[in-house]
Amino acid sequence: MLAEIITIGDELLIGQVIDTNSAWIAEQLNMIGIKVYQITSISDNKEHILTTLDEASKRAKLILITGGLGPTKDDITKHTLCEFFDTPLVFSEKAYANVERLFFARGVAVTELNRLQAMVPANCRVIPNPNGTAPCMWFEKEGCIFVSMPGVPFEMKAIMEEEIIPELLKNLNQVIIHRTILTEGVGESHLATIIEPWEDSLPPFIKLAYLPQPGMVRLRLTAIGTERELLQAAINKAENELMPFAGKFIFGFDSDTMESVVGQLLREKGMTVSTAESCTGGNIAHLITSIAGSSDYFKGSVVAYSNEIKEQFLGVPHQIMVNNGAVSEQTVIAMAEGIRSRFATDYAIAVSGVAGPGGGTDEKPVGTTWIAVVTPTETITKKFLLGDHRGRNIRKASLAALNMLRGKLMA
Amino acid sequence: MLAEIITIGDELLIGQVIDTNSAWIAEQLNMIGIKVYQITSISDNKEHILTTLDEASKRAKLILITGGLGPTKDDITKHTLCEFFDTPLVFSEKAYANVERLFFARGVAVTELNRLQAMVPANCRVIPNPNGTAPCMWFEKEGCIFVSMPGVPFEMKAIMEEEIIPELLKNLNQVIIHRTILTEGVGESHLATIIEPWEDSLPPFIKLAYLPQPGMVRLRLTAIGTERELLQAAINKAENELMPFAGKFIFGFDSDTMESVVGQLLREKGMTVSTAESCTGGNIAHLITSIAGSSDYFKGSVVAYSNEIKEQFLGVPHQIMVNNGAVSEQTVIAMAEGIRSRFATDYAIAVSGVAGPGGGTDEKPVGTTWIAVVTPTETITKKFLLGDHRGRNIRKASLAALNMLRGKLMA
Repeated sequence: MLAEIITIGDELLIGQVIDTNSAWIAEQLNMIGIKVYQITSISDNKEHILTTLDEASKRAKLILITGGLGPTKDDITKHTLCEFFDTPLVFSEKAYANVERLFFARGVAVTELNRLQAMVPANCRVIPNPNGTAPCMWFEKEGCIFVSMPGVPFEMKAIMEEEIIPELLKNLNQVIIHRTILTEGVGESHLATIIEPWEDSLPPFIKLAYLPQPGMVRLRLTAIGTERELLQAAINKAENELMPFAGKFIFGFDSDTMESVVGQLLREKGMTVSTAESCTGGNIAHLITSIAGSSDYFKGSVVAYSNEIKEQFLGVPHQIMVNNGAVSEQTVIAMAEGIRSRFATDYAIAVSGVAGPGGGTDEKPVGTTWIAVVTPTETITKKFLLGDHRGRNIRKASLAALNMLRGKLMA
Repeated sequence: MLAEIITIGDELLIGQVIDTNSAWIAEQLNMIGIKVYQITSISDNKEHILTTLDEASKRAKLILITGGLGPTKDDITKHTLCEFFDTPLVFSEKAYANVERLFFARGVAVTELNRLQAMVPANCRVIPNPNGTAPCMWFEKEGCIFVSMPGVPFEMKAIMEEEIIPELLKNLNQVIIHRTILTEGVGESHLATIIEPWEDSLPPFIKLAYLPQPGMVRLRLTAIGTERELLQAAINKAENELMPFAGKFIFGFDSDTMESVVGQLLREKGMTVSTAESCTGGNIAHLITSIAGSSDYFKGSVVAYSNEIKEQFLGVPHQIMVNNGAVSEQTVIAMAEGIRSRFATDYAIAVSGVAGPGGGTDEKPVGTTWIAVVTPTETITKKFLLGDHRGRNIRKASLAALNMLRGKLMA
């Protein structure tokens, strides 16, 4: 089954909102073997919506639409759907019950604007929206399914997970298996050269894609066929054969993140960590604590954005900073040892660098970054020459630091 | 002039990469008065690329294409462009000089894979890519401009800013003005009800859109016409007239962020801030330090993810936590006062809450969050009942805390 995603909203076409819905929907559909053929973003314009619906329904049998269903006046999607399906707009008791339920939970009265949200095209089946007042609508026309969902991501996601995916799962046949392999510390070109012999040996039904991001390159293997077991065995074989070529750069798989992998290792070992951050400004702590339950292994951080705080709260000797500067191997060692003893953790990470865009010197240009990891038995350090983009430098330094910790946790 | 954006890559259609390029490109084009009619994401499939290029060129006069130009083997875009323009692939000295320059800067020899990147369709003009080895290519055919750029965001952005936008600026006529007004602390429906009389009074050439995000709602005004001064005056008038209705929720405009607004206020006042973070886990420090130059007003943070650290490093009295719990008004006051005096800053923020998904109780369900802001003259606190989504709770609490600080800096 081929699907298309249509996202509606002027805000997408003037670039004030990034369309994150489509990627999420595409991922969910792929997991159940439905291939997305095209993603189309269009404005809140009736003629354009009508044309796009018509064209998409010629290419695919499932059309998922998001956006244009807020309680406010930029909403024209429902009227356009009525015209597309040649049906009137009617009041839905089911949709209104959902609006009432949500307002009751908040302890406020339903506004007239929200009452209007219960108006839907007469030919649709209303699908519950657990997290919002906009209705989700399921249509069928000439063998094609159309689902219109609100554009607010967490509302759309709940509807997809709880209602649409279970419904679609009923009519499956082809099997698609993905395996994503996550690498850190190697660029795309260099990785491609290293793994070329492996890539050339892949069977024709396995496709490889390189997905570079700041600080990491993901390798995605996709196998398509009819026998799930055979595909899975082939993917497993390919993955095992990759290890001799690129194993040292691989830190995780599929939906893993660097912070989830590190968190899992700390949890398994029953160990704790703390961070002392200068240029990363709390981002490592933020990444670690984005994982639910991280309080089991993360005790805290000192973000030391001034030299005085490095001295007073991390115990970095004044003379070390005078002699070597705040961005130096000696300073990050002292920072890491300082936070580890003060916060009484098993491991500690420290980072100090020139994130940019200002602050660089000839000797220490923007991007210069020192990282230290202290374990119960040793201290390791590494110097990085990152780029000149502040946000990317913070991201790369954070990932590199967590990966150094990961290396020690795996040892 | 109408434009379309085409993003190419299997990774987009299986949802492993979010298309952030299109929003950024659309924003840049809008700023110079070029309207984006449609954004289309398609796979690395020759026939599909050919069809999409053909259809887009019937609707628009400018087609911007990203993706499919990496050094690795999933690259078919260039061959497809040759077929579309009916031209052979040739070696470009200009493109190769760029590849050599980048490898020379890195101190490594050019690989054969990267040498192939200098092959381009014969009819294109090669546009320099300052940050990468993939060439950017400019084509013209039957009055339509096609620009093919690499998909790596920071490469594409440099090419757009330095080469494509200046080129396009030469042929402008219509004027579009946007003004985005940023609000925090009010939901979309409630805001819409409050500002309805103002919305109804807008002139017909000004369009309003609601752009909700976790923790904030953005209002976008768009005026289209021929006289820039008249449009600007109308936008200014509309903005002024909105203030009596929604002024107390407005924290910034256009590309402002909460952290940039707070940073600017601290800078203007010559004041400093520190943060003591529990449930936000360093995210407030991360937001503050994402702004270049933030070391001028941000001294640091203690992320206190355990009660012992709240006591030992922030000086929260043991008895306060025993009596009231870590998530309480008394605890956040002590945290904020503790970090302010220890880090010797003018202002301090403290947050403690139940981010979820675990850790909730009947008395303090998931989402319960206390925030304190201490200024040179007073201490304010606020309790929030956020939702049950960890990531959104962290984001909302961070924005709410910064907005409380903003309120005090404005007073």
